[in-house]
Amino acid sequence: MFKAELKADTLKGLVYIISTLVDETKVAINADTISMKAMDPAHVAMMEIVVDKDAFISYEADETEIGLDLDKIKTVLKLAGPNDTIRMEHDPDQGRLTITIGNIVRRMSVVDTSGMNDPKVPQMELPVSVKIPIDQLQKGIRAAESISDHIKLMADPNGFELSCEGDMDYASLRVPVSDLESIVADAPVTSLYPLDYFSNIVKVIPAGTVVDIQLDNDYPVKFLFNLAEGHARVVYFLAPRIENE
Amino acid sequence: MFKAELKADTLKGLVYIISTLVDETKVAINADTISMKAMDPAHVAMMEIVVDKDAFISYEADETEIGLDLDKIKTVLKLAGPNDTIRMEHDPDQGRLTITIGNIVRRMSVVDTSGMNDPKVPQMELPVSVKIPIDQLQKGIRAAESISDHIKLMADPNGFELSCEGDMDYASLRVPVSDLESIVADAPVTSLYPLDYFSNIVKVIPAGTVVDIQLDNDYPVKFLFNLAEGHARVVYFLAPRIENE
Amino acid sequence: MFKAELKADTLKGLVYIISTLVDETKVAINADTISMKAMDPAHVAMMEIVVDKDAFISYEADETEIGLDLDKIKTVLKLAGPNDTIRMEHDPDQGRLTITIGNIVRRMSVVDTSGMNDPKVPQMELPVSVKIPIDQLQKGIRAAESISDHIKLMADPNGFELSCEGDMDYASLRVPVSDLESIVADAPVTSLYPLDYFSNIVKVIPAGTVVDIQLDNDYPVKFLFNLAEGHARVVYFLAPRIENE
Repeated sequence: MFKAELKADTLKGLVYIISTLVDETKVAINADTISMKAMDPAHVAMMEIVVDKDAFISYEADETEIGLDLDKIKTVLKLAGPNDTIRMEHDPDQGRLTITIGNIVRRMSVVDTSGMNDPKVPQMELPVSVKIPIDQLQKGIRAAESISDHIKLMADPNGFELSCEGDMDYASLRVPVSDLESIVADAPVTSLYPLDYFSNIVKVIPAGTVVDIQLDNDYPVKFLFNLAEGHARVVYFLAPRIENE
Repeated sequence: MFKAELKADTLKGLVYIISTLVDETKVAINADTISMKAMDPAHVAMMEIVVDKDAFISYEADETEIGLDLDKIKTVLKLAGPNDTIRMEHDPDQGRLTITIGNIVRRMSVVDTSGMNDPKVPQMELPVSVKIPIDQLQKGIRAAESISDHIKLMADPNGFELSCEGDMDYASLRVPVSDLESIVADAPVTSLYPLDYFSNIVKVIPAGTVVDIQLDNDYPVKFLFNLAEGHARVVYFLAPRIENE
Repeated sequence: MFKAELKADTLKGLVYIISTLVDETKVAINADTISMKAMDPAHVAMMEIVVDKDAFISYEADETEIGLDLDKIKTVLKLAGPNDTIRMEHDPDQGRLTITIGNIVRRMSVVDTSGMNDPKVPQMELPVSVKIPIDQLQKGIRAAESISDHIKLMADPNGFELSCEGDMDYASLRVPVSDLESIVADAPVTSLYPLDYFSNIVKVIPAGTVVDIQLDNDYPVKFLFNLAEGHARVVYFLAPRIENE
């Protein structure tokens, strides 16, 4: 059993973030939280989202698992204003999810979850942590576009830098300590990541969010951030590209 | 002879509605009204629009007939703000229509009307009448898109419902009596219509318009509504799709 | 050496105008001005832009020449708000231009100017001069689109007219003397020009600009106008199309 109501904007944030990696997702539901894990087909990035029941307006659930077609959910989200209430109800016998927005009813089959992978989220301690407003990263991404396929992240005790270098072109965004929420970086670290994955996740994180970027030299980057006024936690990993020299 | 002025917005309403069915139209003009009839090439839908001379700012006309290329008229409409005055003058000797908007003059050949059909508008009394704000139908259309090629209209003494059903998906909009202008429905009726025609006409009816939807079981639907502050009357028929069971 | 700062909006005006004719441009820089000349590959139109150092917030330059890829500059301009300051610095040893907007740094190779042509701007005195707000021409262009490939410009002591004539269609915009800034036209003149060139330059001239259109019968038209609050002067020539009769 799963029956819940939440604000359209909350659902939208969750759906747009998970769908940077997958088109369909398995939602693990229990009495207090729902959680989703996703890994892209090329195994370059992975994320986990855990949403407390406090992110919902109302919430009643037994332990269950639902497979969702994210494109269909996005279509439904377009029918709702940001503050509209979305009501979801799962009928396990019929294999259906019913979504209600005001006087609109939208019913859809849930997706079979048996073939979906269940990625294991790594436990990884990283020496550098940069807490940065997402708006800075979004500005940097726009400057970097079309210069190279890779983006370099650097942090040192004086700040954070994101840069892209092509044969004839170079773009960078330097964020000094004064424009960061906080930084822990005893020594400088540098690592290179695929720009498309980085850009896709940065673009859909809601304005105003502070992201904790955890880094090491030539190592996966870990993004930690909250959605739904702190009631949803996202962890996102992206594999580095090791430069051949 | 035909020489008239009207508000750009009035002309726009008329042109966008008639052009859901045809690209060219014959306009029958007389001393007090102009009227247009249209039937789509597949003979699935038909409409008639009658516009009183009171819909115009100024109006001088003898009985005549003009063929219009609606795409050209739409291009001209884009040059006008909603409250601009559009002046139209027909020169029957040259076969030309001259449209003036401020200091812009746009002249075009009229279209030969001899090959255009002259559909006969059916006299049809239907037992159910639902007067509904167009905004409700527009919301329902958006929910129904991409689910099925057909839309089901239902009415009963408790309200009006529009729904679409696919293999795995279902969408509906239920409008209770309290959200309708009025309803006459002694017994429940249900009928199925092609979604594309229904959607095309619903989308171009101006916001705020109340549409009288007249229905019967497995029968054509009749839309009645006014434009130009009541000075233009539209009647639109759409053939049903009979379900094979 | 070239090191200068200017408002994003000023640079945008210059770049969008010069790029109606070319994708790359040679910028001739000296201690007091920068200038750009451009001729389209078909030699139908030509322009020269001269920008005083007063158009800049700060300006330091020795005589030099830089080749710019205009598409890249446009990409950079999208990162700036209209009132942002853009800092440009040329490193002649590395052959690089560095553009800074706030905490974004964008570096690019300059383009080799050796293959670029250096069109000679004709000295041409024309008998008719019409000073007209660009907004009038922009309205006229929209009316003329899709009627013909050519546009006719006419001036006489009573005003200015722009018109397009096709087989079945005609559009014109008549601007009386009262809506012009000024007119000098002792006798009527008429000339025909390619609509695409005319339309491309008219569309990118900033709103509020007054353009001095200088004309003669079947002769090139000369546009004169200022940008950057009078600190940049543009002269643009467009060859006529001679009608065969």
